[in-house]
Amino acid sequence: MIVHTRLESAHLAGNLLGDPSERDLFVYLPPGYDDDPGRRYPVAYLLHAYGGSAELLVRPATDGERWSPPLEDVLEPVFRRLGSPPLIVAIPDGWSRWGCSQWVDSPVTGNFEQYVLHDVVGHVDAAYRTLPAAASRGVFGFSSGGFGAWHLASRNPGVFGALAVLSADSFLDLTHKHFVYEYLDSIWPEAPSGPIEGNGLSEMIYQYAACYSPNPDRPPFYVDLPVAFPSGELRQDVWDRWLAFDPVVNVHDRLDNLRRLSGILLDAGVKDEYRLQWGHRLLSHHLTEARIAHELVENAGNHGGRSRERYQVALEWLARVLRRD
Amino acid sequence: MIVHTRLESAHLAGNLLGDPSERDLFVYLPPGYDDDPGRRYPVAYLLHAYGGSAELLVRPATDGERWSPPLEDVLEPVFRRLGSPPLIVAIPDGWSRWGCSQWVDSPVTGNFEQYVLHDVVGHVDAAYRTLPAAASRGVFGFSSGGFGAWHLASRNPGVFGALAVLSADSFLDLTHKHFVYEYLDSIWPEAPSGPIEGNGLSEMIYQYAACYSPNPDRPPFYVDLPVAFPSGELRQDVWDRWLAFDPVVNVHDRLDNLRRLSGILLDAGVKDEYRLQWGHRLLSHHLTEARIAHELVENAGNHGGRSRERYQVALEWLARVLRRD
Amino acid sequence: MIVHTRLESAHLAGNLLGDPSERDLFVYLPPGYDDDPGRRYPVAYLLHAYGGSAELLVRPATDGERWSPPLEDVLEPVFRRLGSPPLIVAIPDGWSRWGCSQWVDSPVTGNFEQYVLHDVVGHVDAAYRTLPAAASRGVFGFSSGGFGAWHLASRNPGVFGALAVLSADSFLDLTHKHFVYEYLDSIWPEAPSGPIEGNGLSEMIYQYAACYSPNPDRPPFYVDLPVAFPSGELRQDVWDRWLAFDPVVNVHDRLDNLRRLSGILLDAGVKDEYRLQWGHRLLSHHLTEARIAHELVENAGNHGGRSRERYQVALEWLARVLRRD
Amino acid sequence: MIVHTRLESAHLAGNLLGDPSERDLFVYLPPGYDDDPGRRYPVAYLLHAYGGSAELLVRPATDGERWSPPLEDVLEPVFRRLGSPPLIVAIPDGWSRWGCSQWVDSPVTGNFEQYVLHDVVGHVDAAYRTLPAAASRGVFGFSSGGFGAWHLASRNPGVFGALAVLSADSFLDLTHKHFVYEYLDSIWPEAPSGPIEGNGLSEMIYQYAACYSPNPDRPPFYVDLPVAFPSGELRQDVWDRWLAFDPVVNVHDRLDNLRRLSGILLDAGVKDEYRLQWGHRLLSHHLTEARIAHELVENAGNHGGRSRERYQVALEWLARVLRRD
Repeated sequence: MIVHTRLESAHLAGNLLGDPSERDLFVYLPPGYDDDPGRRYPVAYLLHAYGGSAELLVRPATDGERWSPPLEDVLEPVFRRLGSPPLIVAIPDGWSRWGCSQWVDSPVTGNFEQYVLHDVVGHVDAAYRTLPAAASRGVFGFSSGGFGAWHLASRNPGVFGALAVLSADSFLDLTHKHFVYEYLDSIWPEAPSGPIEGNGLSEMIYQYAACYSPNPDRPPFYVDLPVAFPSGELRQDVWDRWLAFDPVVNVHDRLDNLRRLSGILLDAGVKDEYRLQWGHRLLSHHLTEARIAHELVENAGNHGGRSRERYQVALEWLARVLRRD
Repeated sequence: MIVHTRLESAHLAGNLLGDPSERDLFVYLPPGYDDDPGRRYPVAYLLHAYGGSAELLVRPATDGERWSPPLEDVLEPVFRRLGSPPLIVAIPDGWSRWGCSQWVDSPVTGNFEQYVLHDVVGHVDAAYRTLPAAASRGVFGFSSGGFGAWHLASRNPGVFGALAVLSADSFLDLTHKHFVYEYLDSIWPEAPSGPIEGNGLSEMIYQYAACYSPNPDRPPFYVDLPVAFPSGELRQDVWDRWLAFDPVVNVHDRLDNLRRLSGILLDAGVKDEYRLQWGHRLLSHHLTEARIAHELVENAGNHGGRSRERYQVALEWLARVLRRD
Repeated sequence: MIVHTRLESAHLAGNLLGDPSERDLFVYLPPGYDDDPGRRYPVAYLLHAYGGSAELLVRPATDGERWSPPLEDVLEPVFRRLGSPPLIVAIPDGWSRWGCSQWVDSPVTGNFEQYVLHDVVGHVDAAYRTLPAAASRGVFGFSSGGFGAWHLASRNPGVFGALAVLSADSFLDLTHKHFVYEYLDSIWPEAPSGPIEGNGLSEMIYQYAACYSPNPDRPPFYVDLPVAFPSGELRQDVWDRWLAFDPVVNVHDRLDNLRRLSGILLDAGVKDEYRLQWGHRLLSHHLTEARIAHELVENAGNHGGRSRERYQVALEWLARVLRRD
Repeated sequence: MIVHTRLESAHLAGNLLGDPSERDLFVYLPPGYDDDPGRRYPVAYLLHAYGGSAELLVRPATDGERWSPPLEDVLEPVFRRLGSPPLIVAIPDGWSRWGCSQWVDSPVTGNFEQYVLHDVVGHVDAAYRTLPAAASRGVFGFSSGGFGAWHLASRNPGVFGALAVLSADSFLDLTHKHFVYEYLDSIWPEAPSGPIEGNGLSEMIYQYAACYSPNPDRPPFYVDLPVAFPSGELRQDVWDRWLAFDPVVNVHDRLDNLRRLSGILLDAGVKDEYRLQWGHRLLSHHLTEARIAHELVENAGNHGGRSRERYQVALEWLARVLRRD
């Protein structure tokens, strides 16, 4: 069963994009939740990917060439067919006008890290029979959702005790820098002038910039772009701001936090079109160098084709590592 | 719950390809089947597609870029999340060495029509608490499985009372004839000389020929091909044998049978890469001309991308039209 | 050197599409033409393809990802580098609003067969030092231009004495019928309502219909379409009108004409995306059955990737077979 | 007319790959060369691209889906149709076993810079009526040939007086670094173990390494690779050796040389699949910053689709800027 509520958040209010500060929250309650009113459950927070929303993750669009089942059909077999011990799964909304909040704090898109840490976790612990401690809280997500999971848990080990990163944005130098040039090509020879409807690259680059290199003093888009136009020269100062969010870069500054987690799972497909498996490999390399225990799993998939299976894998894993008193 | 058994069949024994005569049979029992030992259920027979098998339909391969869930995760939500009244679903095996039996009788591949009608239906009625009458039996399938469903029900209304055809092989003149030429191109300038490993077109053409234009007197492949080599001329006599299996052709000879069915569902995606939607449209046109009630449904999908959703749709529909005493 | 003139034609005047009756004519004069004012030359008529015009063939557009050289760079090496004996090459215009006149007579698009036979050939013989006899006149073209070459020479052996067919529209049942369905898919579920800008399939189907199944009594598009909407049923009477233009069909009625030609060259690529090599193969088969001498050549190319080389091959061949008194 | 000779070179002898030290040299003589035995000509050196050879440039393979004309058909119209003043064009061979010498000196592949500077230029000046001075010598090429042209002229302004760079390897950080990871993906999870037949990426990476980061002490492949296996970490020291060859990097050290050239042409397509237009843009930016005159031209093409036209453009340009006493 999935319960739908709406949360109003002061952390999201006043964002420069004018995105709504009231958001969906979906909470999946596992089979048996209603049978034993005294039982408390660990909670897995599931963060959606770029281009999505909590609602789209729970109820995928049905007008495409391919069909995705409702999220319930993905979660339910974990506990019924696969027999995992039960978890509550909370699905907050990180939608942003240009694609995704990346689950970080930004004056442009809103303070989504604060929103999840305080409003979402607070509500879930208040409204459901949770085990309200970091050791019983995990966070996971796919693509930008995996990036968000890394961001939240590696910075807030007092809130989240386990972390599952699925095909996450990482190693931006290899995997994302070229998109900036492809965006410029998409509008060439015009100069950058904001997101353009129907030009996904333009939205993506402005979205990332709104999250990684916001500049509230620079209306109307409030961002700094990391490549100069028309020379193509990398603006190293701006790019360094992007890199500060890159897991393969910031891992070095968060080793103590990461050591506090009871589990870290890195999972990616070896045919990821964005080459994110290399981010995972490099991240694993740095964790290994720092002697931080973690699991690196590679599957046969591309970026998105196995995401639902990987949600199940991550959930089974969280069901094992999260403390159930 | 899915029960796995093996059936030995005299109807399959002695096929010229030397394929096994013992086959898998999977039977899905709906939620609650064990709770009321006096209750009897309608049965939906689900026929798999070309390139598959009963086992692959029930437990899809997990080594690809994309993931397909176990069949149980597709069937179970029909009865739990969608709340359909319960059905038994029987999944027989129609695998053939070159791709698929097409669910027809052939001296080359085996007599799969007889196998399903007698061995499979007989076993299911004997081993499970079924409602053993045509009005409580439906048959459905996707692609070659939809073709098989048409073949079985339109010829045997005394066995099957309802028919759901999903993106079925049909209108072969438009949708399949060109494959014969593409096969010849794939080996050009060599002459046809049987299925070649790694050349899917070669297997497909020999498979269809083994089903539609078998020739036991012509070893080692026992088929007649419908295009002359190297001229490319259509051998009309052979092609007519293929067309005799084409739903848009044989519908005219089976009108009385079709009138006896309690329901006919035709469902296809409007972006089918094989243009099978045109087979469905033309079939619907002929049924309408004959004043035979049926439902023509078109979805937004391509050939395969929504197949699991369409299984759910067909199953919901069968749950409505099959008699439950 | 290529000479550009304009011809006004009564045969084109009054066409129902309102296309211009004055057309470009380009005439290539071989190296040495000006050196010996008493010398007379055979003439090769080069017919352009669908989507083109005489001007685009002579001076290809230069704004694409790929570059095509001016026609002069294709013709000149035939006589300089390859050393062929000289020919005049005449390039008439068969452009039509929806794609191409197909070089046939039609009340909708204009009488292009008459235009070439009378106006173009007449002008060329009058204005240049030609050998004005069928034995010294050849016609060739690629794709719809090859179709046009077949149409003109197989019907008018008193005008053209040699014929080179390059990857020509042929075997329409295999190669073109499906386009009608793809056009309907492109507008589905709307009913056909004429060519749509930006929808190339819509233009192509209406163009073919304007040439093969015109219907002056049916404004505003003046055509009969060969597939019924929405049933998808083939309208056999209309389709038969298309087939009457198909070389693999009408070859049977033109055997006497074809025997009068001094040479027939059929040339196609074995990777033709439209499978036109099968039209050539079948045409060759029928010619062989009728004991009509011809050359069937297959090259390694796809539909268009080797067209300029094949122009050179055809021109070398015509330079050999055309009589130079 | 193109003259073919063979040159034996001590600069190529003893290369570790065992490639031949005797190479083809083709020399194109313009129309009229034989008419005036006292006339001397500027010379344009044309360097072929990766995957090619002098012979393949002069006589392209004819077994593909697409056809390329002999080089003579590309060069001749520059002087005949376009009316450029005549040049000699010399086409040396830079073939290497794994793809291309990149026209640099390497103990692994041979010293191709020395070979061109001394053997090729020496032979051409000795055997043909050239103007034997830098001001009358230009060098140009496409892709790796453009890279080679940059390498030779920017380092040897005493030999070459003009430089035309067509879609050249440049901005390796953006355009080539990812190929190293794609190569590793192509063999994953195996460790790198040399070029593999049929795996073009493996050949390319080992070829670049043989040219940019050779290591004669490391048999059997004699290279250092710039990415660590399996971590994916960039080996910055090796990568810096690659970057030392990158035009957008080494331009800063060659400004005095570049100022001595009488002309620099940078030409690329805006749809280059390798994004090399960004190398050209950045190179132009750095030249502009240093106030070095040059022409930056962008065409509508992709990487290779307009290469023959661009050869003509470069040749017309060289015919203008090279001194003809």
